[in-house]
Amino acid sequence: MKLEDHIRTIPDHPKPGIMFRDVTTLMAAPEAFAETIRRLAEPYSGKVDAVAGIEARGFIFGAPVAVALGVGFIPLRKPGKLPYATSSVEYELEYGTDALHMHTDACGHPDRVLVIDDLIATGGTALAAIKLLRDAGAVVEHAAFVVDLPDLPGAGRLREAGVEVRALCAFGGH
Amino acid sequence: MKLEDHIRTIPDHPKPGIMFRDVTTLMAAPEAFAETIRRLAEPYSGKVDAVAGIEARGFIFGAPVAVALGVGFIPLRKPGKLPYATSSVEYELEYGTDALHMHTDACGHPDRVLVIDDLIATGGTALAAIKLLRDAGAVVEHAAFVVDLPDLPGAGRLREAGVEVRALCAFGGH
Repeated sequence: MKLEDHIRTIPDHPKPGIMFRDVTTLMAAPEAFAETIRRLAEPYSGKVDAVAGIEARGFIFGAPVAVALGVGFIPLRKPGKLPYATSSVEYELEYGTDALHMHTDACGHPDRVLVIDDLIATGGTALAAIKLLRDAGAVVEHAAFVVDLPDLPGAGRLREAGVEVRALCAFGGH
Repeated sequence: MKLEDHIRTIPDHPKPGIMFRDVTTLMAAPEAFAETIRRLAEPYSGKVDAVAGIEARGFIFGAPVAVALGVGFIPLRKPGKLPYATSSVEYELEYGTDALHMHTDACGHPDRVLVIDDLIATGGTALAAIKLLRDAGAVVEHAAFVVDLPDLPGAGRLREAGVEVRALCAFGGH
């Protein structure tokens, strides 16, 4: 099954020149969505203790992967969303900064945590997620994405940080 | 397994007098999370064509339920989050209003859609979700939640709207 065929491209979104890869059409297709979860999970069977998903599309792929692997799920959230004590990390956006938060008791050494998101582009958010997990003591050696944009440096930056990166699809351009 | 034992209560969050039911401890517990998904999905096997999850905790429970049922997943999102054409519905909060959006091609008649969220309290958000789906032509006869707060009117309001409601746990108080 070609998962790419289930991903919709929206030209000039959110701004001119950007080809937005819309994964809602993939999750709407029952067999393609199930196959996506199988392929995301399979390499990590028995190799991780938890899955961390990045808000919000990372929840839609990460939570089923956690269930498939029989491990727990850790939500990494935008500021102000988690009710208990959190640790956090700031990261740079094109304009300004954003932050990811995690409950302080969500994980710790020596938990092996797999990071999941729908797409990797420049890698800023994923690197922030990895730092947040590692600062808590977790071992982060793997990250998996539905889509990689290989013309952008995200996957390479994660590999430089010692994280093995897998993606199910790749799209040229930004 | 008593799923209640895996849900953390945070007193006086987000404001004095509120007992916040925190499901992140449930999703962090591998067996309890898997059991939660099994119990949420089981009554609907063969009875629904899609699962709609309400942003953002509804994604974490709804997406694995969709995979378990072998159907597609529809994200119902806050304004400005979906990249394609959307329909939307406004609903009342304690102070002010909020809105849910859905892609216009996410579902239609005669799709049978199951609504999933982590918790039902007053039911405002869930009723908005049901209206959004029904306005698109979908048949919405079922909604399922991890937690019901039976001292609040949400589940009753959904039943008055012709929706059968299930919840895995109930907590007294607000």
